[in-house]
Amino acid sequence: MRFLLLALFALFSATAFSADNIVGFDAEGSAAQREIEAQLDRTVDAREMDGWLKLMSARPHHVGSLASKENAEFIAELLESWGYDTEIAEYEILLPTPSVREVELLGPTPYSATLREDTLVEDPSTSVRETLLEPYNAFSTDGEVEAELVFVNYGMPADYEILERYGIDVTGKIAIAKYGRSWRGIKPKLAGEKGAIGTIIYSDPADDGYGAGDVYPKGPFKNESGVQRGSVMDMPTYPGDVLTPGRGATKGARRLDREDARTITEIPVLPMSYRDALPFLAAMGGEVVPDEWRGGLPITYHLGPGPARVRIKAEFNWDMVTAYNVIARLEGSEYPEEWVIRGNHHDGWNHGAADPLSGLVAMLAEAKGVAELAAAGHPPLRTVIYAAWDAEEPGLIGSTEWVEHHADDLKEHAVAYLNTDGSSRGFMNIGGSHVLERYLNQVTEELDDPVTDITLKERRRAYQQINGDDKAKAEATERNDLRIYPMGSGSDYTPFLQHLGIASANLGFGGEASDGSYHTLYDTYEHYMKFRDPGLVYGATLAKVTARATLRLANAPRLPFEFKGFADNVAMYVTELQELADSMRSQTEQTNKLIEDGIYAVALDPNKSFGPPKVKAPVPHFNFAPLKNALGRLQEAADSFDAIAGSNAIASEEINRLLFTSERLLTRDAGLDGREWYKHHVYAPGFYTGYGVKTIPGVREAIEQRDYEKVGPQIDIAAGVLNAMAERIEILSEKVQGESS
Amino acid sequence: MRFLLLALFALFSATAFSADNIVGFDAEGSAAQREIEAQLDRTVDAREMDGWLKLMSARPHHVGSLASKENAEFIAELLESWGYDTEIAEYEILLPTPSVREVELLGPTPYSATLREDTLVEDPSTSVRETLLEPYNAFSTDGEVEAELVFVNYGMPADYEILERYGIDVTGKIAIAKYGRSWRGIKPKLAGEKGAIGTIIYSDPADDGYGAGDVYPKGPFKNESGVQRGSVMDMPTYPGDVLTPGRGATKGARRLDREDARTITEIPVLPMSYRDALPFLAAMGGEVVPDEWRGGLPITYHLGPGPARVRIKAEFNWDMVTAYNVIARLEGSEYPEEWVIRGNHHDGWNHGAADPLSGLVAMLAEAKGVAELAAAGHPPLRTVIYAAWDAEEPGLIGSTEWVEHHADDLKEHAVAYLNTDGSSRGFMNIGGSHVLERYLNQVTEELDDPVTDITLKERRRAYQQINGDDKAKAEATERNDLRIYPMGSGSDYTPFLQHLGIASANLGFGGEASDGSYHTLYDTYEHYMKFRDPGLVYGATLAKVTARATLRLANAPRLPFEFKGFADNVAMYVTELQELADSMRSQTEQTNKLIEDGIYAVALDPNKSFGPPKVKAPVPHFNFAPLKNALGRLQEAADSFDAIAGSNAIASEEINRLLFTSERLLTRDAGLDGREWYKHHVYAPGFYTGYGVKTIPGVREAIEQRDYEKVGPQIDIAAGVLNAMAERIEILSEKVQGESS
Repeated sequence: MRFLLLALFALFSATAFSADNIVGFDAEGSAAQREIEAQLDRTVDAREMDGWLKLMSARPHHVGSLASKENAEFIAELLESWGYDTEIAEYEILLPTPSVREVELLGPTPYSATLREDTLVEDPSTSVRETLLEPYNAFSTDGEVEAELVFVNYGMPADYEILERYGIDVTGKIAIAKYGRSWRGIKPKLAGEKGAIGTIIYSDPADDGYGAGDVYPKGPFKNESGVQRGSVMDMPTYPGDVLTPGRGATKGARRLDREDARTITEIPVLPMSYRDALPFLAAMGGEVVPDEWRGGLPITYHLGPGPARVRIKAEFNWDMVTAYNVIARLEGSEYPEEWVIRGNHHDGWNHGAADPLSGLVAMLAEAKGVAELAAAGHPPLRTVIYAAWDAEEPGLIGSTEWVEHHADDLKEHAVAYLNTDGSSRGFMNIGGSHVLERYLNQVTEELDDPVTDITLKERRRAYQQINGDDKAKAEATERNDLRIYPMGSGSDYTPFLQHLGIASANLGFGGEASDGSYHTLYDTYEHYMKFRDPGLVYGATLAKVTARATLRLANAPRLPFEFKGFADNVAMYVTELQELADSMRSQTEQTNKLIEDGIYAVALDPNKSFGPPKVKAPVPHFNFAPLKNALGRLQEAADSFDAIAGSNAIASEEINRLLFTSERLLTRDAGLDGREWYKHHVYAPGFYTGYGVKTIPGVREAIEQRDYEKVGPQIDIAAGVLNAMAERIEILSEKVQGESS
Repeated sequence: MRFLLLALFALFSATAFSADNIVGFDAEGSAAQREIEAQLDRTVDAREMDGWLKLMSARPHHVGSLASKENAEFIAELLESWGYDTEIAEYEILLPTPSVREVELLGPTPYSATLREDTLVEDPSTSVRETLLEPYNAFSTDGEVEAELVFVNYGMPADYEILERYGIDVTGKIAIAKYGRSWRGIKPKLAGEKGAIGTIIYSDPADDGYGAGDVYPKGPFKNESGVQRGSVMDMPTYPGDVLTPGRGATKGARRLDREDARTITEIPVLPMSYRDALPFLAAMGGEVVPDEWRGGLPITYHLGPGPARVRIKAEFNWDMVTAYNVIARLEGSEYPEEWVIRGNHHDGWNHGAADPLSGLVAMLAEAKGVAELAAAGHPPLRTVIYAAWDAEEPGLIGSTEWVEHHADDLKEHAVAYLNTDGSSRGFMNIGGSHVLERYLNQVTEELDDPVTDITLKERRRAYQQINGDDKAKAEATERNDLRIYPMGSGSDYTPFLQHLGIASANLGFGGEASDGSYHTLYDTYEHYMKFRDPGLVYGATLAKVTARATLRLANAPRLPFEFKGFADNVAMYVTELQELADSMRSQTEQTNKLIEDGIYAVALDPNKSFGPPKVKAPVPHFNFAPLKNALGRLQEAADSFDAIAGSNAIASEEINRLLFTSERLLTRDAGLDGREWYKHHVYAPGFYTGYGVKTIPGVREAIEQRDYEKVGPQIDIAAGVLNAMAERIEILSEKVQGESS
């Protein structure tokens, strides 16, 4: 293989690590740093990680369970034993757990959903279920409702536009939606906005079950009884404890009344398996669904409403429980006031072997190695903090409460936050703040994929060259650095990045193992070791990747922030926004004309109820000039900084401070329109996608939601944060130049 | 609706029929012609058509059955009674019918396929099954084979490339293929070429069953027991009686030995329902199929080979049977030696209500109207021949034998051939020789859709504007005439068009009713009247459309052939060919580079057997200049003819003869490479698609099959036929100018 890859190495020889300094280091420093990294690599022991994984995944360990508390204590003991200054930070949070879960098909053919997952003889862990949380969606409201069923596909805004064309209104009905395409919480949120009185979410086997591949225990895909649990808290409004938005949920904290918590759903919602969903869907009538809405059950899918009539009863114990965050600190030898924070949650919905323990044990291996380096005389220059978060699953609660609690300190001291979560095997996926793009790319240039004998970066590049869309393919050939993806939400980086403006990243492996056990009883040690990452070979590699990422941040004379990659990504977003407006404008024009000319009406089957779409307001032209001017300034500043600082490690405390606080400039205290908790104006989770990112969200969502009045003001706001960043980079150039002369 | 459509009418006002002469007529002639067409419309009686449909579909009536003979006699009597000079032309043809049909899953879990369709209480016709041909594929060879099963998706060339990447060789195996994507005969042909020893074809419910919509009797889609019968004769090599290629199968005709017939399959093949297919597919192992290969059964699909082990036994009665073509002639009052031929087959696989009787009863209504016009003093100026073909289903046999038998006369006298076949409701679909494009468009400008109160053409245009791809959408707005599709094969126009070069067309309605009964027991009167065209409202409209098409050909002073549309379509094909070569060249280059650089190898999951594709020979640049020069000449000649003849009806017998024989110039006696029966060099069925057309087939298939040596010579051949056509049009311009001066 190596021989064949000569061409590649030739093409990207500029990045071959032996020739380059590490970003932020000079030549000598780079050599020393690489030396201690190699030393750390030797401490990573997959068998030890396996032991931790097996131990911590032996029982269900959701927040509030004894197992979760004991896991936290186990983690704290390990970290303490390696020399970390360790505490368990406790928060008192509201956690609903189910007391009544009933979903009943009243007719035409009565059926009661089991809402229960099978114990499998092939997987002993699945019989460990004394403290199991049976399938539910956390932060559904209590309720009992009865109505006809309507099939809403994935329950996204575009799906309701289609339903409207069929003349179907969900007002007063129960919506049944497939998992997927959006974060699950969007489904009941939107159903409620549209007037539905209850929601069922199920995993369709075409997406997540036998249609996708062999199901557990034969293969890794979703068992027919498997139910994806998960939070439906309205996290795009704010994550964390629902009673203490913006404040740490400490014992004495001021709390909202539950009725005033905006992030609990308006209508009751329960999840189910595809085995349970079959009788419900088979009992539906009305028009046959559009082709693209079909699932993998052996029936004809219908839209309803009815004749299937359904009763949902959902009641929850609204208990206050304690979340246990493990916080372990290793003081920096040179810059103790600069904090590099590294985290992974420890709570799981069930046994949680993949999610989150696969990532957690990699973090522990890393932490152990970092401690051993320190003990061997190579302490981190900056303070390193390892955090094992509790209560991520119900809504990023542990991390959010800690971040809110320590917001002022974090704004002052936090250099960056590095996150991991469930990981498996395949390709290195990195998301994050683009000021970190170059430095993170460099890390993946210096480690080999454990299976294919090529660097992580080049394997990822190969994947993109074969599987990417045309643009990704071209970029894989032409762009030296692989883009890191912009982050929406879905793990504990959210409060750091989007609430406080701390540059953040999320790292993991994936792409070669099914995620079918996600949030089910089947996310066990057995499943993980058989299908996800046998031998933890990728887990061990992940520890080495994140150790480099942590240590380079901790030890670099000048923090490895870089701005050309940032400017290049922002340029892409600005182009996308203009193209979005242009394509919406021309599509709206064309469609309106076809509607007004009566073309739609005559092209449709008169025997079906599917009618033309509604005429939409024309899309005006927007003044993108402020954004483009700001972008121009940003690009110029980034180029200039690169020319001045690109190949040296000139630094000062002031320079480093100006570097790590630069991401703060992308936030505004006022936050995003309608959701002030989210302060970042370049990255946010979509209000109607949930996990999916919206870049330059103020502008993008105003356009997408056809809220045209807001586009201009949002362009000005976005231009403002980009100008602030550009100015900062200009100042940085001056400072570096000043230091060097 | 009319009000809203003003914009459309304004845009295309040039085509509003009251303003225009009929192509080939002057103003006075146009008025008179429209007058008799209106008279004919009044003779079309949907209730009468209903009676004929009910009668002829009461029993299974495949060729060789008593019912087929009696239907032929009934049709002949009707035509005779209306004044046609009618004969029943008999041919002796080889027809295999099944004697042994066994498909058995030997293990792991034994199962014997029923290969039998359920009788339904809801549809009385389904209990009329004494003479039913049980499901089979006609012209499968006899055989008994036993082997492991391999899933080959749709059994197309690209599917075998994927299998090869999985390291799967079908040599010595039995292939199971889904119906669809290609004409069915391609599946065993290609499986045989690849070394398989048997083939099973089944209808997957995702394509044709509950996945697509409600199944019969609840809805029109394929019942779980329904099996698509059909011929697997190698029609892309030659259609018609397998023993008499190129000759009429008259009693004393010279015949091949059966062993020498090239169009019988090499390996045995049997079709089955999805209910029967389920246990076979569920028993398969090996890799999970690629995502795009999945079907709609509630299982994980695997590629095999095995462990499913299968035995197929197929034996047939290889009987000689008589095909009864009904040929009815109404002598032209002015030009009896110029023949307008109009046909529809009468044999069906079973009850055949949709296929072919829905089209046949429309033809009979037309023929009755034409006869009544003649009786009322408006006989056709040219001879009109109505043909009801037998034995279309097993391989276009009735029409092919008659055409081969009368080839010399037809080349001399046939002006054009107009075909119909099964039809339902929805949109007007027209395919054909593009010299007929303008005239056929004009017909659809002058009749309203029976449901939406807009012309057939504008409804079709509306469909294209809403549902077309970007190019089709743009053309629907910009191009006055809607393109008629180029014809491959699949009905009785093939011998006329592709063997003799007689300008042909095929007309029908569709798009709003499922074809799920196709070639099954459920293609009954009950199914048709409930789901396909209740009240025969589209059937009656079809009669009016085809009556106009027939009568305008029969009565036009100058035959309504036109060349600008032809040149425009050919120009599109020439562009496509160049784009095809260019895109294959760049894709081959890119892919080869990715393979040679080892990118594929490292991007693929090392735990799976799916490997990189094979390097392919680079695609050279071809000299398209001869084709482009010929096209240029053709376009110029067409423009010039249009300027000279566009708005008049100047004619002579010589001009008309030069017009209707122009299509002959697109043929060459030598035929296509490797299949000399096919003489046409602009339209042919694809050698590996079957029904799907290949335009400029010599060039296109040489490129597609990467047979680069042949591309140059084939370009010269195609340029030759286009130059001949251009020269003919130049001569025509001279002649018309001569007549007018």
